[in-house]
Amino acid sequence: MKIDFWFSELQNEDVKFGVRVKSHLYSKETKYQKIDIFDTEFFGRVMILDGCFMITEKDEYMYQEMLAHPAMMSHPDPRKVLIIGGGDGGVAREVLKYPVESVDLVEIDEEVIAASKAYLPNLAVSFSDRRLKVHNMDAFEFVDADMSYDVILVDSTDPIGFAASLFSDVFYLKARKLLEDMGIIATQSGSPFMNPDFMKKAFKGLSGHFRTVKPYLSFVPSYPSGMWSYVMASNGKIEKRRDFTGRYVNSDIYESSFKLPEFVKKVLER
Amino acid sequence: MKIDFWFSELQNEDVKFGVRVKSHLYSKETKYQKIDIFDTEFFGRVMILDGCFMITEKDEYMYQEMLAHPAMMSHPDPRKVLIIGGGDGGVAREVLKYPVESVDLVEIDEEVIAASKAYLPNLAVSFSDRRLKVHNMDAFEFVDADMSYDVILVDSTDPIGFAASLFSDVFYLKARKLLEDMGIIATQSGSPFMNPDFMKKAFKGLSGHFRTVKPYLSFVPSYPSGMWSYVMASNGKIEKRRDFTGRYVNSDIYESSFKLPEFVKKVLER
Repeated sequence: MKIDFWFSELQNEDVKFGVRVKSHLYSKETKYQKIDIFDTEFFGRVMILDGCFMITEKDEYMYQEMLAHPAMMSHPDPRKVLIIGGGDGGVAREVLKYPVESVDLVEIDEEVIAASKAYLPNLAVSFSDRRLKVHNMDAFEFVDADMSYDVILVDSTDPIGFAASLFSDVFYLKARKLLEDMGIIATQSGSPFMNPDFMKKAFKGLSGHFRTVKPYLSFVPSYPSGMWSYVMASNGKIEKRRDFTGRYVNSDIYESSFKLPEFVKKVLER
Repeated sequence: MKIDFWFSELQNEDVKFGVRVKSHLYSKETKYQKIDIFDTEFFGRVMILDGCFMITEKDEYMYQEMLAHPAMMSHPDPRKVLIIGGGDGGVAREVLKYPVESVDLVEIDEEVIAASKAYLPNLAVSFSDRRLKVHNMDAFEFVDADMSYDVILVDSTDPIGFAASLFSDVFYLKARKLLEDMGIIATQSGSPFMNPDFMKKAFKGLSGHFRTVKPYLSFVPSYPSGMWSYVMASNGKIEKRRDFTGRYVNSDIYESSFKLPEFVKKVLER
């Protein structure tokens, strides 16, 4: 039988989203954050960081695909990829579907990776790919390295606390220096409905360092409002150079996700 | 101060969405359903029917616009419009932005209209427009009338209980007979993520009676999963014949909303 046992995310102080829990599989207070894994009735297993949904087995592909594929579909020849955050392994899983040479994944909290390996095998599958190298360190420091990348994907938590530096002007400047000439960066930028200032900050920040800046949207039901934004930027052109069909993304979605509702345009114009 | 006072919709038996309440403004058990109006911290005033979000002041325009405008933008000359349900007045408000001659609104529950007039002035504004005529009756009977329309918009509750007939094969047949040659029908069809069978039923049902059937999507944060579907159908072509810019819709959104994520295509192919 189902008991009256719920986990809820307080999406802001006045809105909450709750899921019925089968069991609480894991809980750990790390140096950086609190990690919880629940098995839930509707969403399958879910990973919660500091009380917020990061991953649900039922809809994780929508976010992972839409952070990874638009950039990978746009780059002329993406061989070297840097993932900032993404310790669950999901974005890396999508990137590794391309014939890339190497993927550097910089996750500050090694406990996220350990939890994913223990409980989210469909995401952690990427950690057994020999092209993937994990760096357990602060990405803000990693981006000082003398490296170069074709694609950088910023799969971080929201810009509060230890992840705030990953949306700063200095970070975007450092990221630009790491990118090859035709390089592309894409970052998640939150819900334009619940947290419009976050999307605006990412858009304005990237606009200060890149010639082409393209915001886009996808559905992600388990994230606040179900409406999620991303910003892609490059000093080259951003256009589709190859097709990819996943569980969410396809060539039509590549084009249509750049089309913004009026109220989102107004968020970016303010 | 804010007290710990919440209304939650059970979106299904394992998922709930809660909003902090300032006050419970209205509650009535009608012949058909229970109507509640709350004033909430984040979403403003909300109308709840049988425990489900129908309207929130903060995001109602996303749904109203996306049910009304794609059909109105597609019809060569929309003069006579029928709205099935829509007793809050929101869809009518959008339709009345065009130079239509007449709008018939068929709402079975006159108490919904009364509640909207009392608490949702931004939606009920349409009831003071002389082109709008309200019919308090079952739409399934109304569609036997000897009338003709250019556009029919089905803004009903979901296909359970008294609204089930509005998604039946017989209803679609009757609706087709009411439509002029180039006429267009559009219906809401639920969340493809939470309730895929509903979208599929509307798509298959309309496909049995119309040559052109086009499903489409929009964000609606207060509806289950934030991902909402609609189906538009006609025996003529469906293409954009005029522009309209609202708070959500614009000409780009008209085109992009027809582009479906892979998993939604699979729902319709099953």
